[in-house]
Amino acid sequence: MSIVITGVGSYIPEVIKKNSDFLDNVFVNKDGSLIDQPNEVIVEKLKNITGIEERRYVKKNQLTSDIATIAAQRAIEDAGINPEELDYIIVGQNFGDVRDGSNQTDQVPSIAARVKHKLRIKNNSCVTYDVIFGCPGWLEGVIQAQAFIRAGMAKKCLIIGAETLSRVVDPHDRDSMIFADGAGATIIEESDQPGGILAHESASYTYSEAPYLNYHLSEHKEEAIKNIQYVKMSGRRIYNFALTKVPQAMKSCLDKSGRSIDDLKKIFLHQANEKMDEAMCERFYKLYDKPIPEHIMPMNIHKLGNSSVATLPTLLDQVRKGEIENHHLEKGDLIMFASVGAGMNLNALVYQY
Amino acid sequence: MSIVITGVGSYIPEVIKKNSDFLDNVFVNKDGSLIDQPNEVIVEKLKNITGIEERRYVKKNQLTSDIATIAAQRAIEDAGINPEELDYIIVGQNFGDVRDGSNQTDQVPSIAARVKHKLRIKNNSCVTYDVIFGCPGWLEGVIQAQAFIRAGMAKKCLIIGAETLSRVVDPHDRDSMIFADGAGATIIEESDQPGGILAHESASYTYSEAPYLNYHLSEHKEEAIKNIQYVKMSGRRIYNFALTKVPQAMKSCLDKSGRSIDDLKKIFLHQANEKMDEAMCERFYKLYDKPIPEHIMPMNIHKLGNSSVATLPTLLDQVRKGEIENHHLEKGDLIMFASVGAGMNLNALVYQY
Repeated sequence: MSIVITGVGSYIPEVIKKNSDFLDNVFVNKDGSLIDQPNEVIVEKLKNITGIEERRYVKKNQLTSDIATIAAQRAIEDAGINPEELDYIIVGQNFGDVRDGSNQTDQVPSIAARVKHKLRIKNNSCVTYDVIFGCPGWLEGVIQAQAFIRAGMAKKCLIIGAETLSRVVDPHDRDSMIFADGAGATIIEESDQPGGILAHESASYTYSEAPYLNYHLSEHKEEAIKNIQYVKMSGRRIYNFALTKVPQAMKSCLDKSGRSIDDLKKIFLHQANEKMDEAMCERFYKLYDKPIPEHIMPMNIHKLGNSSVATLPTLLDQVRKGEIENHHLEKGDLIMFASVGAGMNLNALVYQY
Repeated sequence: MSIVITGVGSYIPEVIKKNSDFLDNVFVNKDGSLIDQPNEVIVEKLKNITGIEERRYVKKNQLTSDIATIAAQRAIEDAGINPEELDYIIVGQNFGDVRDGSNQTDQVPSIAARVKHKLRIKNNSCVTYDVIFGCPGWLEGVIQAQAFIRAGMAKKCLIIGAETLSRVVDPHDRDSMIFADGAGATIIEESDQPGGILAHESASYTYSEAPYLNYHLSEHKEEAIKNIQYVKMSGRRIYNFALTKVPQAMKSCLDKSGRSIDDLKKIFLHQANEKMDEAMCERFYKLYDKPIPEHIMPMNIHKLGNSSVATLPTLLDQVRKGEIENHHLEKGDLIMFASVGAGMNLNALVYQY
């Protein structure tokens, strides 16, 4: 038995938010003091480090569950399956539905239940739940679904990553410019084809790392008195953490798969920061005393920012469709997924396409 | 191989909120009009239908992750395991940490990551995530953990149900009196003992039922303009739904286990409403043309209300400790768990103690 991805879909929100759209923001330091630089400089620095030129936001009337549903429909169509045959709908998300003008997370019922409702699926045996696992939530959903298949509890699963970070960002925090909205989805199925999921790796670093990515009040004093929490990160600590731990997890996963690093054709890495992603990839190859090959890591961060759980399935969808220059997939290609985020959680998966 | 519960723990919050504490509330109907009855009558009716005399709330400085950690510690002690050996920490929850005076769900990082952090567990291979599945979230966590064990991905898992509904209830809604706070936890392990988990059943009814339990503005017009969402339910529709679907799922689960209804010693049913629970249990026995046996269903709703995901593990803990009159468990006893809640999700599990 193998477990293969049979369909992929994504939804890239329509509102383009450019770096220049942040030029009028009032940005503060972690101590609440105004950043002593013109916004042009702040924005340019962000672009130089992260690679982000623009990002996508949902429209005012759209919710996480809406865009999750669109991505799901596209994955179902791509797989050519009858949605009534799905055994599980799993949604990786971290903030639920947040309505425009609200700051509340709405996940009652779960986003997965809402997606199933919106897809008009009638089969009550199709179990819907959300997994809260930070940015690696979509990949963790895939890992959980493969466990259900291996345990004989499922044959076909829909796994979605969907998030609307635009609804939970602090306008006074530079890091807000990193975050974006998006949704991606995949169908995975039990199969008798060779290949598919070969190995996976998951880990949760919580001892010191739990607060690295959190939900907290603004550092801007007038904003903070409103008592509203926003997504917050300790960029430097995350950078150092990711650079040490992610390449190790990737190596551990590849070694478990029994395949050689020389056979690896593509690495799909969570898109949080271009410089960080390049450094992680380099370190991974360094663990094998190899230089990083050309065109190994497709990227969409320049135009899409960090859309959390949506990043990996969206990137896979784009590469499959030939939308990322110099990146194509062929039947039999050995590929790897890896992600890191709030928890701090990380995971990796080796897959034969 | 069998999968057995080796430890149970719970935390019953200390603040007792009596029915009489609601006598000064201003309750409104679903159309926003004042309920044309004295509060004494409203409160008495609630007690007669649901059985709830009082419920527990957390203290102002306590969060869901705090009480989840206490329950987890007790389950770990009960199992006598080294917490560093845990492969998974799974938390069933629906509203995350909601600070006193806030109405925001905080689940970044996940409640499971916070619990692991608070337990000072160092093992990074212990994976932490939250499952959003309505009230049946703890039981669904158990079902997922057993899948990981069966798939060879885990040997020891900690599954927690924790919720602080007192932070998300509308003071103008009669249904608020049903909800409570609590935390319960279990350790499940791979074993070579006979018995353990024999069968399970999960379902998600979303086609028409998705909105039955949701997060919505108050019906009280002055409250509604604050734009704050609260947990809301369509009591009558949930009642009818549960009475039809839960007994069927229980039967399907028992039949899968291959055991006879005559061997069933205890039914642990999600505690949402005493009359509803009794009716569900009766209907279940009616499906086998049997009368409901005496002392089959332990209840704690009278003193604890509906603490969502925490109800089942707390009830199990109380029965194990002999804290519920006429209810004891002996080695080898055949028992069943069943739950229903937002989604609408339901599940059942047959277990040989």
